[in-house]
Amino acid sequence: MKHTSRDIRTANRYAVLRHLIAKSPASRGELAAATGLSQATVATLVAELTALGLLVEVGFEESAGGRPRSLVAVDAAGGALVGVDVAETYVHAELFDLALGVVARAEEELRPGESAPEEVVARIAAAVGAVVAAADARRPPRVLGVGVTMPGQVDRERGVAVRAANWGWRDVPLTALLGERLPYPVHLDNPLRAATVAELWFGAARGCDDAVVINLGTGVGAGLALGGALHRGVTNSAGEWGHTTLVLDGRPCRCGDAGCVEAYVGAPAIMRTLRELAPHSALLTDDDQTATIGALGRAAAGGDPVAVRVVRETARHLGAAVADLVNLLNPEVIVLSSWVAAALGTPLLTEVRQAVARHALGSPFAATEIVLSPIPTDPVSLGAATFALEGVLSSPGLTGTTLTPHTT
Amino acid sequence: MKHTSRDIRTANRYAVLRHLIAKSPASRGELAAATGLSQATVATLVAELTALGLLVEVGFEESAGGRPRSLVAVDAAGGALVGVDVAETYVHAELFDLALGVVARAEEELRPGESAPEEVVARIAAAVGAVVAAADARRPPRVLGVGVTMPGQVDRERGVAVRAANWGWRDVPLTALLGERLPYPVHLDNPLRAATVAELWFGAARGCDDAVVINLGTGVGAGLALGGALHRGVTNSAGEWGHTTLVLDGRPCRCGDAGCVEAYVGAPAIMRTLRELAPHSALLTDDDQTATIGALGRAAAGGDPVAVRVVRETARHLGAAVADLVNLLNPEVIVLSSWVAAALGTPLLTEVRQAVARHALGSPFAATEIVLSPIPTDPVSLGAATFALEGVLSSPGLTGTTLTPHTT
Repeated sequence: MKHTSRDIRTANRYAVLRHLIAKSPASRGELAAATGLSQATVATLVAELTALGLLVEVGFEESAGGRPRSLVAVDAAGGALVGVDVAETYVHAELFDLALGVVARAEEELRPGESAPEEVVARIAAAVGAVVAAADARRPPRVLGVGVTMPGQVDRERGVAVRAANWGWRDVPLTALLGERLPYPVHLDNPLRAATVAELWFGAARGCDDAVVINLGTGVGAGLALGGALHRGVTNSAGEWGHTTLVLDGRPCRCGDAGCVEAYVGAPAIMRTLRELAPHSALLTDDDQTATIGALGRAAAGGDPVAVRVVRETARHLGAAVADLVNLLNPEVIVLSSWVAAALGTPLLTEVRQAVARHALGSPFAATEIVLSPIPTDPVSLGAATFALEGVLSSPGLTGTTLTPHTT
Repeated sequence: MKHTSRDIRTANRYAVLRHLIAKSPASRGELAAATGLSQATVATLVAELTALGLLVEVGFEESAGGRPRSLVAVDAAGGALVGVDVAETYVHAELFDLALGVVARAEEELRPGESAPEEVVARIAAAVGAVVAAADARRPPRVLGVGVTMPGQVDRERGVAVRAANWGWRDVPLTALLGERLPYPVHLDNPLRAATVAELWFGAARGCDDAVVINLGTGVGAGLALGGALHRGVTNSAGEWGHTTLVLDGRPCRCGDAGCVEAYVGAPAIMRTLRELAPHSALLTDDDQTATIGALGRAAAGGDPVAVRVVRETARHLGAAVADLVNLLNPEVIVLSSWVAAALGTPLLTEVRQAVARHALGSPFAATEIVLSPIPTDPVSLGAATFALEGVLSSPGLTGTTLTPHTT
């Protein structure tokens, strides 16, 4: 492994900017205290980030008995970032200011059959164009980068969608294709990692060295943030917790194996549990996962006995599988994220915590918080925009070679 | 998280020394190529390590068309490190030269009832004294540090054995107690992490960013090396893979839960499988785990049908649990280590690989090697000595403030 001073500088820029996004303005002394860096290092980093147009000086604060301290803040209007969440049926784009506040949103539908690479690329470009246009018609925002998440296996270094099973894609050079249509740097990754980075920068994992973000949707995964950064694995496929074995020789899973976590806690699995417990339940809305899980969540919150039993049975399995993460990784926080977690909410969280307590070892369990994602907007778009911001921070030319000064 | 230039310098010292321990002598240019560091950085690091007495200049090598390049090597005789493996029934100490070759070994028995902290400390001090005396009676070696591993939960920062369940220990300040008896810096950690560091520095995980070392003994654990370094978790308890759930509501486990990996692949679990498949097998040697597992391994290698079935049934469970690590962590290598892995050897490895192939996802499985530990000696003592060496490399005073020059 190679450790360079450039890696460190990038990590330190992250640390300063992260703190300022959470709390602006701040003095250099506060930043030094919050990041553990020296005053001199903070001063250099602030100068670099100011030259990039990301920070501004915003005045002075009286200090007890000394000269007034100057304050810096994120220059929210200094640029914009776009996060694009590409899913099977839609392309969702959000434009953020530099304080990572949402400025504009756009969505493009992907109809069945519209899945050729050029069609999807056109939809992504249209969604990005729409949010840029919506942001400010008179003065277009200075877009510093676009982050795009794709389901399936992606090679972020090369910008290639290696495999998107549902569309039959193999090795589509998505970043290059988007580069022909968009005049911005494009960063490709997958939605699980985007949601994890969003929690790490802005959500429940802020300030944590070791955190797990569990994605509960149709599919199931666990984004791993270890040592303060994403753990990607040797081929960028880490996090396939949905296909770890919970019940050897148990329920068949769509991956071809049996007894996987996903076969008990993914949305289709929860519907199966509901059908098994109450075949004629009014909660079953044909094969509409979103509607059924939503109805189930509302019914469970209202005390409906069948819904409560389904949530409990789901939590019994989810809790055992979460306990595996507690025992193996000893994280500070485990975040339940994505639409199934949001729909089942507190009733699920309460039961999961009890189930984890039954299965986890005492010492790591006592050290782990289990929470619902506190991010109010789409964490995948936010995480995708964060990848674009990370791209800006790790660019080697920090003094205007890749970014022109912000002119008004 | 704090990233300092000191962390980087320590990591770079590791990188240079690790390469030289694997292959001495080498030129500065070779070291730069092997580590990815600049020639200037390598020159500085070599100077620091030479001043510490760890490296020596060993002559010149002709280079094609240029001036001869000077070569450096580990100064094997420049110092010594002691690794101590404390287990329930013994204290095993090894003294290593700086090339991490074994110079002397000693073992002290811990009889039942001899488990008070002062008794164990006395045995450790005696074992360390014995290897130091055995190394060279006329000129005592310059011992740079002692690494000690303790079963149970340890706090390495404070040097405290937080809990050793079998001895009833709570918060024993082991490093302080040893400091009263030994004139060397003492580093405390647990055996799982020592075995993992041994593979990372000298074994099957050398050069790997992401590796898992599976400890197969009476207990079962998985040491995680992620991003090129040990993953410890927030309270230093990561790696409790033996207590992740493989069969929900399955076999009872000694941790109080049911269906844990350890309940299927730990030594007592393998004996239970043997008893279930062949209650009157001649392989069963009362409750002697070591003898039974050893006989089982020899019988399986010889094609004995019962032994082959027991190994296959063990591998069926072990393989599913190893596949969980492949899917979740996407490592480059998974190493099967400790005495059960050594005793069951190739028959176990072959069956495990087949079982992992059935359960793991194709892409991460293709990227993972599964191997038996290649370390010929005790990896726990070796890893403990490595912790002591890491202590030397991360000492802030690198120019003789903590280490006196090597005088002869």
